[in-house]
Amino acid sequence: MQLSQIAAIVGGRLVTKSGVGDTVCTGANPPDQAQPGQITMLDDPKKAAAIAPRIESSGVLAVVTSSETEAISCAQIVVADPHEAFAKIVAHFRPAIDDTPLADGVDPTATIHPTATVHPGVTIGADVVIGPRTRVRPGVVIMPRCKIGADCVIHPNVTLYEYTELADRVIIHAGTVIGAHGFGYRQQNGRHVPTAQLGYVAIESDVEIGAGATIDRGTYGATRIGEGTKIDNQVMIAHNCQIGRHNLLCSQVGIAGSSRTGDYVILAGQVGLKDHVTLGDHAIVGAQAGVMDDCVGNQVYLGSPATPQREQMQIMAVERKLPEMRREVKQLRRDLDQLTSRIAESSSSDSADSKTFPDHPDRSAA
Amino acid sequence: MQLSQIAAIVGGRLVTKSGVGDTVCTGANPPDQAQPGQITMLDDPKKAAAIAPRIESSGVLAVVTSSETEAISCAQIVVADPHEAFAKIVAHFRPAIDDTPLADGVDPTATIHPTATVHPGVTIGADVVIGPRTRVRPGVVIMPRCKIGADCVIHPNVTLYEYTELADRVIIHAGTVIGAHGFGYRQQNGRHVPTAQLGYVAIESDVEIGAGATIDRGTYGATRIGEGTKIDNQVMIAHNCQIGRHNLLCSQVGIAGSSRTGDYVILAGQVGLKDHVTLGDHAIVGAQAGVMDDCVGNQVYLGSPATPQREQMQIMAVERKLPEMRREVKQLRRDLDQLTSRIAESSSSDSADSKTFPDHPDRSAA
Amino acid sequence: MQLSQIAAIVGGRLVTKSGVGDTVCTGANPPDQAQPGQITMLDDPKKAAAIAPRIESSGVLAVVTSSETEAISCAQIVVADPHEAFAKIVAHFRPAIDDTPLADGVDPTATIHPTATVHPGVTIGADVVIGPRTRVRPGVVIMPRCKIGADCVIHPNVTLYEYTELADRVIIHAGTVIGAHGFGYRQQNGRHVPTAQLGYVAIESDVEIGAGATIDRGTYGATRIGEGTKIDNQVMIAHNCQIGRHNLLCSQVGIAGSSRTGDYVILAGQVGLKDHVTLGDHAIVGAQAGVMDDCVGNQVYLGSPATPQREQMQIMAVERKLPEMRREVKQLRRDLDQLTSRIAESSSSDSADSKTFPDHPDRSAA
Repeated sequence: MQLSQIAAIVGGRLVTKSGVGDTVCTGANPPDQAQPGQITMLDDPKKAAAIAPRIESSGVLAVVTSSETEAISCAQIVVADPHEAFAKIVAHFRPAIDDTPLADGVDPTATIHPTATVHPGVTIGADVVIGPRTRVRPGVVIMPRCKIGADCVIHPNVTLYEYTELADRVIIHAGTVIGAHGFGYRQQNGRHVPTAQLGYVAIESDVEIGAGATIDRGTYGATRIGEGTKIDNQVMIAHNCQIGRHNLLCSQVGIAGSSRTGDYVILAGQVGLKDHVTLGDHAIVGAQAGVMDDCVGNQVYLGSPATPQREQMQIMAVERKLPEMRREVKQLRRDLDQLTSRIAESSSSDSADSKTFPDHPDRSAA
Repeated sequence: MQLSQIAAIVGGRLVTKSGVGDTVCTGANPPDQAQPGQITMLDDPKKAAAIAPRIESSGVLAVVTSSETEAISCAQIVVADPHEAFAKIVAHFRPAIDDTPLADGVDPTATIHPTATVHPGVTIGADVVIGPRTRVRPGVVIMPRCKIGADCVIHPNVTLYEYTELADRVIIHAGTVIGAHGFGYRQQNGRHVPTAQLGYVAIESDVEIGAGATIDRGTYGATRIGEGTKIDNQVMIAHNCQIGRHNLLCSQVGIAGSSRTGDYVILAGQVGLKDHVTLGDHAIVGAQAGVMDDCVGNQVYLGSPATPQREQMQIMAVERKLPEMRREVKQLRRDLDQLTSRIAESSSSDSADSKTFPDHPDRSAA
Repeated sequence: MQLSQIAAIVGGRLVTKSGVGDTVCTGANPPDQAQPGQITMLDDPKKAAAIAPRIESSGVLAVVTSSETEAISCAQIVVADPHEAFAKIVAHFRPAIDDTPLADGVDPTATIHPTATVHPGVTIGADVVIGPRTRVRPGVVIMPRCKIGADCVIHPNVTLYEYTELADRVIIHAGTVIGAHGFGYRQQNGRHVPTAQLGYVAIESDVEIGAGATIDRGTYGATRIGEGTKIDNQVMIAHNCQIGRHNLLCSQVGIAGSSRTGDYVILAGQVGLKDHVTLGDHAIVGAQAGVMDDCVGNQVYLGSPATPQREQMQIMAVERKLPEMRREVKQLRRDLDQLTSRIAESSSSDSADSKTFPDHPDRSAA
């Protein structure tokens, strides 16, 4: 689709250096995921300088923005509401299929490799692709347009929402749900109105996901799980998260929206991550910790809020001694007060003495 | 069914002002949910005064009780074990169907609106009603007597236990389970014996529930989710909870039995609520907090046990400084001891001096 | 299979007292689960003395070990890598069936008691046995070689992986997954390689498991849930755990690998247990607590790390007063410094006075 056509669809004004709008745009993605030839979005003009380097280096074709900006050199489509306009563009490239009824069993438009094993009770939607030697167990539902690579195993009763992508050798255990709508709402007249959830989930090669886990789709682009990462049962990964390669995410971990982890990150059981935090490579977070801020890599973090191990261990050591410390503080007060009053008495008796000097000149005169 | 018939079923003594027992009772519900014309239960005579106003104002027809009470003016059925008797009555109005085998596919007694889309792989039990334009995805199991409104979407592999009620525009994501038995047991001869779990789940309009969530049925009446409330993935809501309207319950929140939230309550990720607590309107609870007591509304709560934000922030600020504070306490002790001994020495030298006065009269005499 | 055959399969050296290797071995299990006539493993020769009593008393036939040990009197098969060898032996007795495609519906080799009720939409694998009066709801998938007793209820969309054993009167609620692979990996060339997960899950009689729970299979033997234990929704129990009898595990509890609980243990909501910890009989752990070490029974534990109630209550009481305590410490410092400088002044004025003595001989001379 040409940029000029996209501008027309969203009722926007196209600004290009050449003045020509016939360049063909091949896709739409958020700034951190946009590929060469694609269009992206600048939701806040104040962020222009911050995202400009990424846009310049990525070969992005155009930006949807609410006001023309000098900071970005590529084509711009200027609209009143960039989110609304960008949602329209994304939906053009990845049409919503929520309302399409599913065929019984395997849709005739699906492409299943002859060496794949799909159980008869499985539902496979339109345009799904399944690679060689992949095994799909009973009760699995694969919604339209999912792409599944080679040698994957999808255990019973798993649900893959539309557009989910699994690379090769991905294992998904029973009851897990990939690609449900992100938990994003804006309030309007006292009601929570869902925001666009037009993205999808991309799972790279050699990822294993446990039973009863949930990974939500991105808002516009992909929620991504990096190559070789292992995810335990009942882990929750929210929309737009970018999980690095070779992570270990233990059971019942919860990661809120748009957070990122580097490579070789380990999150122990029941850890929680706030939204929009970033963990560096080789960061390790101890069980039940709550990560509230970015964490540099090659460090161990404990506690809620999560704190570098050394510091947190010191804090915890003192916490154990708090009752004793409280008694000591009370004792200090008593001792100090006693000392103070003893000195006051003694100095008042001193000063009484002192005063006696003039009163009893005879004494000094003694 | 007439009150006299109910009394006969449970082997109870009917006490009415009129002395007549032919009034027709239309249902059975716990005191906080009982409607006009229904029967309710007073499980402990000591609570009579407390629940009397609700009973008087609600138009309740009768109360099952272990001893006749003056505090309540409506009809009373006096029995030895009110729980056992009330369970029998509830089961009369909402018969247990656990043992009924389900038909394959859609039961012929189900009423499915012609505009609804039900995937062929779905199981729908006896007497289920499904409203206009509602879409039911593959792998969904809807047990007997569920009532589902208009424009709902039930995603793949969801289970609705018997008697579940969804109003209009309810969305339930994949793998979620509504209406399982509450976790209620009493100990008997060293074994945990399940208590009656005869209630159901009622979900009001415009509720959205994420993937892998679980909401248990009430003991006698409804576990209720209020209109417009949004529930994220892997949230757990236990039996008898009454969730208000327009709440936001983030991922992995757990709410124990019989708790209540007001309207516009927000619970962040991994929050836990103890059983039988109440949160006021617009209460906000921060991630991983543990609510142990009732919380008034229009306040932010943090920590475990959850504490008003201001107070908790102060506590947390000091916690970060605990190692420093401990050193300061130790230093205070050293400084104080040093001062004390210095004073002791000086005063002992003073007193020594003093003593020397008489011993060295020459000095004072100098 | 004879011991000599087993030794040949793993390429090991068989050491027996009699020198004869024709004794028949009936199974393979880890040391704590091995039965008479079975073979077990000693993965670290240093543990020989520790596990010797269990091996001697259990009637175990032989041990796979990396070096011959005097500490153990039974037959030994000496190999380079005991884990690899033992995995081969276990796989001989309990062959992996991951790659076997499942038949549609009920496999002809399954044995279903005529009084059992199996919904037509259920998938039942090869060699499964289902006992009298057991009910299996729609959407359930029972993988090959599971053994299910009498009077069980398996609610919709439950998945039982291969070799799962349910005794009698076991109830499993919707969406629960029993027997998925344990979360065990070793790192090799920068990648996480799954370790053997060849065990299974054994659930004893009268256990009830809530909705959306996950219980992983053992590494070589059984993850076991003891008789009469009740497990709430969304509980996670990792590989090799041995849960005692008549426990109550509340919602969202997470138990890491190889942990053990005694009888009548209660874990409140969202409690986490570290791997390899043991809780004594009648231990109670409060909501959201994190158990990091073994806990003796007949005690209540609170907090993270979990601490005996009395101690933790004292700590928490002081935590609430931390801001006040901090002010007091600061005030103590001010008061002490003031007192110190007052004394310094007074003693310097004293000493000044003292000094004045010699300087003003006239005064003492007065």
